[in-house]
Amino acid sequence: MSADAYAEIQQFYARHMQLLDAGEAEAWAATFTEDGSFAPPSLPEPIRGRAQLAAGVRRAAAELAEAGERHRHLLGTHAVDVGADGELLVRSYAQIIATPRNGQPRLHLMCVCEDVLVRRDGTLRVRERRVTRDDRG
Amino acid sequence: MSADAYAEIQQFYARHMQLLDAGEAEAWAATFTEDGSFAPPSLPEPIRGRAQLAAGVRRAAAELAEAGERHRHLLGTHAVDVGADGELLVRSYAQIIATPRNGQPRLHLMCVCEDVLVRRDGTLRVRERRVTRDDRG
Amino acid sequence: MSADAYAEIQQFYARHMQLLDAGEAEAWAATFTEDGSFAPPSLPEPIRGRAQLAAGVRRAAAELAEAGERHRHLLGTHAVDVGADGELLVRSYAQIIATPRNGQPRLHLMCVCEDVLVRRDGTLRVRERRVTRDDRG
Repeated sequence: MSADAYAEIQQFYARHMQLLDAGEAEAWAATFTEDGSFAPPSLPEPIRGRAQLAAGVRRAAAELAEAGERHRHLLGTHAVDVGADGELLVRSYAQIIATPRNGQPRLHLMCVCEDVLVRRDGTLRVRERRVTRDDRG
Repeated sequence: MSADAYAEIQQFYARHMQLLDAGEAEAWAATFTEDGSFAPPSLPEPIRGRAQLAAGVRRAAAELAEAGERHRHLLGTHAVDVGADGELLVRSYAQIIATPRNGQPRLHLMCVCEDVLVRRDGTLRVRERRVTRDDRG
Repeated sequence: MSADAYAEIQQFYARHMQLLDAGEAEAWAATFTEDGSFAPPSLPEPIRGRAQLAAGVRRAAAELAEAGERHRHLLGTHAVDVGADGELLVRSYAQIIATPRNGQPRLHLMCVCEDVLVRRDGTLRVRERRVTRDDRG
């Protein structure tokens, strides 16, 4: 994995997670492929397609606003392999930090995030994501 | 943002934060421009200039020593834009970890750090910093 | 430190820590040099050589399995210097996150990791590691 590719991956995730945490639902969904899928630990079936991905972010943002909490997704420790068709297989550690208004921040969840990244229209996008929680399984 | 630039930013922050956490007041202040400013969440007005920046670090280091605590500033998730004059606009997530002597480490604060970085004498320096706490506002 | 070198270091640590957390004892030990040493805060003497390093991982993995906990080693904030013989002196911050099955994750330890990395057979390896805990000393 060249330095160029690794830096691009790091920058991709920085923007991607900052969009998510800002509740920028459509802009975040656009960082997936059109048919991108996300299998979170909380759902029996993956979420598929940008409309559903964006709807999930809007729902989560509304719940956080009501709870008076802010979440940050800190992704790092990216181990990258290249698949048969040039897709990037990225396995990362994810800390989710929750901070209540006027309260103490806490480590809400510790997860592993396994992505398949592909290039579409000149930029990296998530084709598949699978997230597992350290407290389960 | 090229891989070269992104790696330089990451290395800049690694040294910058290790200097801060080591209480190396003057060396840390020198990673700002001469007239660099830092708007922390705890003060009504930004701190300006290296002398004031260094004084702030010395004060914080003395308070930590008295409290028997160690702080670490973990900065990551750097999203970088380039401004009109080539300055780097870097928005990062910052975890501040506090560990009392013989005690348990804790996530003390979760913050967002927005920097304007410029090149002076061949090296990156902070011209402006604004830090916001997730538990406020 | 070039972008190429810095990206190689980051990728090295991502794989290295994922191997450790997966309990891949031999594969992890192979990321040290043959005579690599590791001075953890818990032992009076450094562990030396791949056999001993692997044995330590197997023991830790067995203890974690019995306790029903998962550990993640999150290494970052890498400040790198180059030694007289070209070896890389890397000082990093390390969060160790512990998550009990069906429980809340917690920041178990906050450490500083000081490595000497050298190139062997074309790839980076740890020749010496010294880890200090923020709650001690």
